[in-house]
Amino acid sequence: MIIENHKNLNMETKRENVVRPIDPANFLTEETGSEEKSPGCFSIDFTVAVVLPAGGSGERTGLSTPKQFCTFLNRPLISYTIQAFERIAWIENIVVVIAKDSIDLMVNIIQQFGHKKVKVVLGGSTRHRSIFNGLQAFGESEEESALKKPKVVIIHDAVRPFVEEDFLLKIAIAAKQQGASGAIRPLVSTVIATTSEGYLDHSLERAKYRASEMPQGFLYDVIHQAYVQCSETDFEFGTECLHLVLQYCGTNARLIEGPHTLWKVTYKKDLLAAESIIKETLAQTACVVAGQCEESSRLAGALQKTLGSQDMHVDIVPTSLRRSSAFISKTWNFVHVTVNTAGLADVEELVKTFEETAHSVLYSVVLILVHLDVSEQTSASERMAALGGIRSLAAEAKRKNILLYGILLNPVKDAGQWEEAVENLSQIISALIKERSPALAGQLLWV
Amino acid sequence: MIIENHKNLNMETKRENVVRPIDPANFLTEETGSEEKSPGCFSIDFTVAVVLPAGGSGERTGLSTPKQFCTFLNRPLISYTIQAFERIAWIENIVVVIAKDSIDLMVNIIQQFGHKKVKVVLGGSTRHRSIFNGLQAFGESEEESALKKPKVVIIHDAVRPFVEEDFLLKIAIAAKQQGASGAIRPLVSTVIATTSEGYLDHSLERAKYRASEMPQGFLYDVIHQAYVQCSETDFEFGTECLHLVLQYCGTNARLIEGPHTLWKVTYKKDLLAAESIIKETLAQTACVVAGQCEESSRLAGALQKTLGSQDMHVDIVPTSLRRSSAFISKTWNFVHVTVNTAGLADVEELVKTFEETAHSVLYSVVLILVHLDVSEQTSASERMAALGGIRSLAAEAKRKNILLYGILLNPVKDAGQWEEAVENLSQIISALIKERSPALAGQLLWV
Repeated sequence: MIIENHKNLNMETKRENVVRPIDPANFLTEETGSEEKSPGCFSIDFTVAVVLPAGGSGERTGLSTPKQFCTFLNRPLISYTIQAFERIAWIENIVVVIAKDSIDLMVNIIQQFGHKKVKVVLGGSTRHRSIFNGLQAFGESEEESALKKPKVVIIHDAVRPFVEEDFLLKIAIAAKQQGASGAIRPLVSTVIATTSEGYLDHSLERAKYRASEMPQGFLYDVIHQAYVQCSETDFEFGTECLHLVLQYCGTNARLIEGPHTLWKVTYKKDLLAAESIIKETLAQTACVVAGQCEESSRLAGALQKTLGSQDMHVDIVPTSLRRSSAFISKTWNFVHVTVNTAGLADVEELVKTFEETAHSVLYSVVLILVHLDVSEQTSASERMAALGGIRSLAAEAKRKNILLYGILLNPVKDAGQWEEAVENLSQIISALIKERSPALAGQLLWV
Repeated sequence: MIIENHKNLNMETKRENVVRPIDPANFLTEETGSEEKSPGCFSIDFTVAVVLPAGGSGERTGLSTPKQFCTFLNRPLISYTIQAFERIAWIENIVVVIAKDSIDLMVNIIQQFGHKKVKVVLGGSTRHRSIFNGLQAFGESEEESALKKPKVVIIHDAVRPFVEEDFLLKIAIAAKQQGASGAIRPLVSTVIATTSEGYLDHSLERAKYRASEMPQGFLYDVIHQAYVQCSETDFEFGTECLHLVLQYCGTNARLIEGPHTLWKVTYKKDLLAAESIIKETLAQTACVVAGQCEESSRLAGALQKTLGSQDMHVDIVPTSLRRSSAFISKTWNFVHVTVNTAGLADVEELVKTFEETAHSVLYSVVLILVHLDVSEQTSASERMAALGGIRSLAAEAKRKNILLYGILLNPVKDAGQWEEAVENLSQIISALIKERSPALAGQLLWV
């Protein structure tokens, strides 16, 4: 049974001609260390598809929801993993293999987050049966809905969301050349053999062994052949695809050391870590929208500097260009600086732009209105009153996954006070961007 | 070389007679599943000490600081691990083995966080040499500073902060009975042997093997003897203590399956996870301080209910008892409800109490002033003005690791509005408690 991902879903059609925002890429790149980076765009002269077995029950997380459907930042884990493949131009199709009970849920996820390359397939009773079901969605199938058979198929876990293009390229090319390839990692712990009574038997020499991880790549014909030939026992108790192709096709897999970011979400702590990583990655960039007047430019420049010293890359965009997709697509964080005028109409317009460009579909957009009133006649309460409308605007924006906050910057006199104010302002902006808290949306803060 | 942890440090003496707040215990207990819980207080009729090797350079985190000294929520990782042992009554001493370059740092950490049972020992060039140095801090040493030799010594990693008392008890008792014991976990990934050319040789049958984790327990005499007898090669290249006692003392370790919370902080993602876990655990309880008047009681009761439905256990404490250590020691989160009067003096007093009881030494204290003004004569700006003093109070409190926030609850008329207001208020309180953001301290929010 193969279930088609309906191509004419309303949400998808609506956004067909819209350029999708780039994804936060290079998660935790500071950690990859010696991992070599491939240069920019890749071209690959064979077809590649992906099979994502996602039928697990997630018992180990201790949560009632299977872990691939656990949600953080308003999106289920599996959508992050799908997106990691979908953003790669040379990957043609993603077959997601799902347990019967979760099919409706999966179809809703595809619709809500506008996934385009995904086909949903019904899982089997074991991991190997599920992968085989996924492979049968391609090629030889009688059904009209069958996908074109790829040269190489990549098998990955739905619960490893941080896989990157350069590593997938290595896996795909090695699979094309050798018939099979797989990611390995050094062992984190010593592996020991135990006696049946629960005592130490012996420990393995760590250097000789590796942990077999995902992704793995295969020539489609090789992995398909292995499954056609393998025994019921393999289907029932086996776990390692690399082992199957060795046994049934004589294909000896090329093993490639992968980055530690391939780690698998297994426990609740891993979900918390995944959320923190996404939050931290989203907080690496921001866009300051500022007018041409002296105060506005000065504040924007100062923010660029102080936020920059907190490892945030900040672009300054003139108000006139703020609706340009070139700027919008670069970040999910916007600071709109206004001087003297409240600027709520401008903010409303920005919210509309984010909506039209579907910018907040995958990640929440943080929009911070910073209001500097330099006219000494205005009292603090008048300034607050002028911005009172931010609450209803924020409530509306929140429904579109846009988190709007206001900050009132009181006028300061000397340079020392100004520096302190900018420092405090930066810290608040940085905290709002890092936390992405829906509960605080609509609040008007003071510096 | 053995460095004594000075007993007369100012901070320590000052707090000598102060009851230390209980620690957030039972981290992520919802995940331990079948893990049996031992009942309440333990009594143990032999002496137990701990050796914590912490000389690693932390290359794998990709951070410049060794990972045991990486800081989250204003405290280095190693202090969380030390505290996990220090809170256990039957653990007598904790010997921390530290690389030469980090000794001053470690002494400062002990002083700043008021650790009491710790002795710092200079590390060796390898893990085994460091552990042996740690063991030599006990007993036979000629130096006056030598600690009393324990019956059982537990060896643990400085980078596994979430070890719990019931599991340590199992390890200690098994070590007493068998001579040696160690934590094991099921293998997360398939383990494979690779050929020298980087191809798959064979995969291990997962069920027969386990990952050897920490803590491990030993009769002091057994592990000491093993180190006295072992070879230079063991010192230089060995990693597994269980292996040494088997080889040199014929002691076959009892292996005990531990909870997954024993996991080791290895990469930056693990630091992020540890921070999230601590934040989540701290957010499990709160104390609402409220007066006797009708509005105050009503609001406190409503908060207890709504925060309770978000899995936060809330105690209500009458204003008159708010300085009682019985209430203070239970939580790190306080919501002070005031009606009509601004209540800043009360808040100032609470801050003083936290300071006197050293309540914010280990974890930041969140203190939220919720101000409900039911007199219809007061304007919004008058209400804000009355609470303007919160900013300077918050700045002072922040220096003591106390995070003070204000929330203005506007008077509402009908029951529907009241429910909505309480719901919004709860969400803001919950967000402030979960995020513990220093940058937002001193802000006055609105509901």
